Amino acid sequence: MGAEATDIVDSAAAAVNERRLWQRHMEMAKIGETSKGGVDRQALMPEDVRARALLADWAAELGFECTMDEIGNMFVRRQGIERDAAPVMTGSHIDTQPSGGRFDGIYGVLAGLEALQAVEDAGLATRRPLEAVVWTNEEGSRFMPGCMGSSVFAEPGLLEQMLCSEDMDGVTVTKALTELGVAMPAVRARPLGGEVAAFIEAHIEQGPELEATNNTIGVVTGIQGTRRFLIEVHGEDAHAGTTPRKRRKDALSAAVAMVAGLERLMYDEHDTVRFTVGRFVVSPNAPSVVPGHVAFTIDFRQPEQEVLTRLGDQVEAVCRANAKACAVGVSETSRTEPTKFEGLVPDTIDSVAKRLDLPHMHIFSGASHDAQNLFKVCPTGMIFVPCEKGISHNEAENATSYDLAAGARVLAGVMVAIANG
Amino acid sequence: MGAEATDIVDSAAAAVNERRLWQRHMEMAKIGETSKGGVDRQALMPEDVRARALLADWAAELGFECTMDEIGNMFVRRQGIERDAAPVMTGSHIDTQPSGGRFDGIYGVLAGLEALQAVEDAGLATRRPLEAVVWTNEEGSRFMPGCMGSSVFAEPGLLEQMLCSEDMDGVTVTKALTELGVAMPAVRARPLGGEVAAFIEAHIEQGPELEATNNTIGVVTGIQGTRRFLIEVHGEDAHAGTTPRKRRKDALSAAVAMVAGLERLMYDEHDTVRFTVGRFVVSPNAPSVVPGHVAFTIDFRQPEQEVLTRLGDQVEAVCRANAKACAVGVSETSRTEPTKFEGLVPDTIDSVAKRLDLPHMHIFSGASHDAQNLFKVCPTGMIFVPCEKGISHNEAENATSYDLAAGARVLAGVMVAIANG
Repeated sequence: MGAEATDIVDSAAAAVNERRLWQRHMEMAKIGETSKGGVDRQALMPEDVRARALLADWAAELGFECTMDEIGNMFVRRQGIERDAAPVMTGSHIDTQPSGGRFDGIYGVLAGLEALQAVEDAGLATRRPLEAVVWTNEEGSRFMPGCMGSSVFAEPGLLEQMLCSEDMDGVTVTKALTELGVAMPAVRARPLGGEVAAFIEAHIEQGPELEATNNTIGVVTGIQGTRRFLIEVHGEDAHAGTTPRKRRKDALSAAVAMVAGLERLMYDEHDTVRFTVGRFVVSPNAPSVVPGHVAFTIDFRQPEQEVLTRLGDQVEAVCRANAKACAVGVSETSRTEPTKFEGLVPDTIDSVAKRLDLPHMHIFSGASHDAQNLFKVCPTGMIFVPCEKGISHNEAENATSYDLAAGARVLAGVMVAIANG
Repeated sequence: MGAEATDIVDSAAAAVNERRLWQRHMEMAKIGETSKGGVDRQALMPEDVRARALLADWAAELGFECTMDEIGNMFVRRQGIERDAAPVMTGSHIDTQPSGGRFDGIYGVLAGLEALQAVEDAGLATRRPLEAVVWTNEEGSRFMPGCMGSSVFAEPGLLEQMLCSEDMDGVTVTKALTELGVAMPAVRARPLGGEVAAFIEAHIEQGPELEATNNTIGVVTGIQGTRRFLIEVHGEDAHAGTTPRKRRKDALSAAVAMVAGLERLMYDEHDTVRFTVGRFVVSPNAPSVVPGHVAFTIDFRQPEQEVLTRLGDQVEAVCRANAKACAVGVSETSRTEPTKFEGLVPDTIDSVAKRLDLPHMHIFSGASHDAQNLFKVCPTGMIFVPCEKGISHNEAENATSYDLAAGARVLAGVMVAIANG
């Protein structure tokens, strides 16, 4: 960076307000607050809608325009000198897991708003516009698959399929988006997709490394690949007292054998394979009825392409081999290859962190992020900040206001550097 | 039976109306009707309340008094010559499993009403009053344990405990009973319990034996014992992408290992052990979260006291041995010892079936029934009729109007024989 670039980076970073950023987190944490201090704010539920409305209010107070695309992604824009130039974009998600925490996702949105406000407060003009984005349904807990909004942004051809996704009550994404639109009439529509100069996502690490090594900033070098499956086991409801084992088509017994078989398949001594059965739904789910149906999900992640392919390709065979008297349907609901972040964005994060004298390290992400989808359309990277003990997807998730502000300082610096570069 | 007794048995049996009995089944089947032709009418849900109201209407048209006790058991009474004599009682339940059929339970109630109406139509006076009863919550699918109403009738000291039972939405039995009472203001309250001269329950077999041997009537000689358990597995919610296997406290993985271990414990070559995990509830039940909690039920039945004790006593140890990194709580929610029906009631069923020239056999019940509780307080027995292919606790459950009427004929005959005996 030249002298002019470093000046503007310093000014933007210095204007980040730690207290304001923390207070906005605490206000957002009230929306969907759980009794254990966590947050339940699932995609397009009333809590998600209220949180988006609050963000839109803050944006309006700052004079930033707010727009929304057909999958519900919301864009807060600070205009650039070249109004039609591709923007430098940041952002993450507002939705949470059912027992989520106060920082996962929302941090990337609020750090984005803070970066825009810092640039505004510092009175800086940027050549490119700056945008802070809320990507719809990153978590995939209500509607599958996750990272829905960013995937449609990157591949608009996916729109129709995603709109048809249903939650467990049979509500479609289309229906839920209609309710979002009705609740936010002032937000103008914008077309799907569009050119992006660069995307930078700030996020809590969701792992223990930064804390353990006393680093404040993680320069993310990549994200492991993910394959997700839905397994449907079809048996037959029967009376628990009268039906002999040999005449049963017990979907739960078969599903349990499948999960045990999959655990054997996925076992690795080095503990790098991430294999999770997170959802398991039994029907009719009554104590005295042999279950006629079970549906369960598989979440399988790996940094190595070869392992992701080899083990994932055996899932169906293992399920079939353990189906006992039942029929089984296996469908792969999403697949994301491992991502490697290189070049412009991670390099700029690295140099801004150095310039701001923040202890930083290169780090690989175990969790999936919307950045994986933006990576398909523009230079992309991520900034991680520490979270307590690496605990995430848990109501106990925690972070410090200092670390959150440090990440927002790096983000503001990176955005202005790239927007003027 | 003497000549007078056989006359009255013949008259009562002959007055049973096959068409009326079938039509009442079809009317009841509309209340809670499912898309696959079954019934979802769980205990004290609005469908149960509507079905009870319909029964009360039919009773009122016939001039029979309808009363209700503190656990919601409903009694339809045809008065006897000796008004204060202990009644001869019949009945079963109106509630169903979530994917139940059109005959389980409701048959015993409607056969009871039909028996009372047949005695009325035949213009017969009986020395003892006759009562047809609806026992509250036999199935135990909404509130645990099952056979709730009959257990409180037999042991009024259980009332307080049962009233506190909660469904999965946290609704208590007390609350649900209040709604039942509000819906049926015309039904007079009666005290819990009371003397009973004899109890006869009519029921579909829920097994294949009668059909396979071309018998119309099963004279039930006993019911196998049941032990039910609730297992709670406590782990820790964690991120599916970032948490290594060694750091997980995966409640689903532990629960799956427990079920597999229990299946090994319960395996018997002769296939007489009935072991079922019918309910399995995962929390937070989201695809990308390592589950922090699982609760599952065990339904274990056996005709042999020794086996019931020996295997049931090992359930807790097997769960603990497979808990992995989780904590586990094991509670036995109900225990019923094997029952043997002997003497007055089965002997009378046998002789009435013979008198009516109906093919009959002695049969043992795999399913639990309210008769197990009445057995504690009075001479008790059961009449089984065939059901198609033995299918029950399934929306495909079926029976013929001929067989249902035959069972009601035997029931009417047995009731008048005992009431005048």
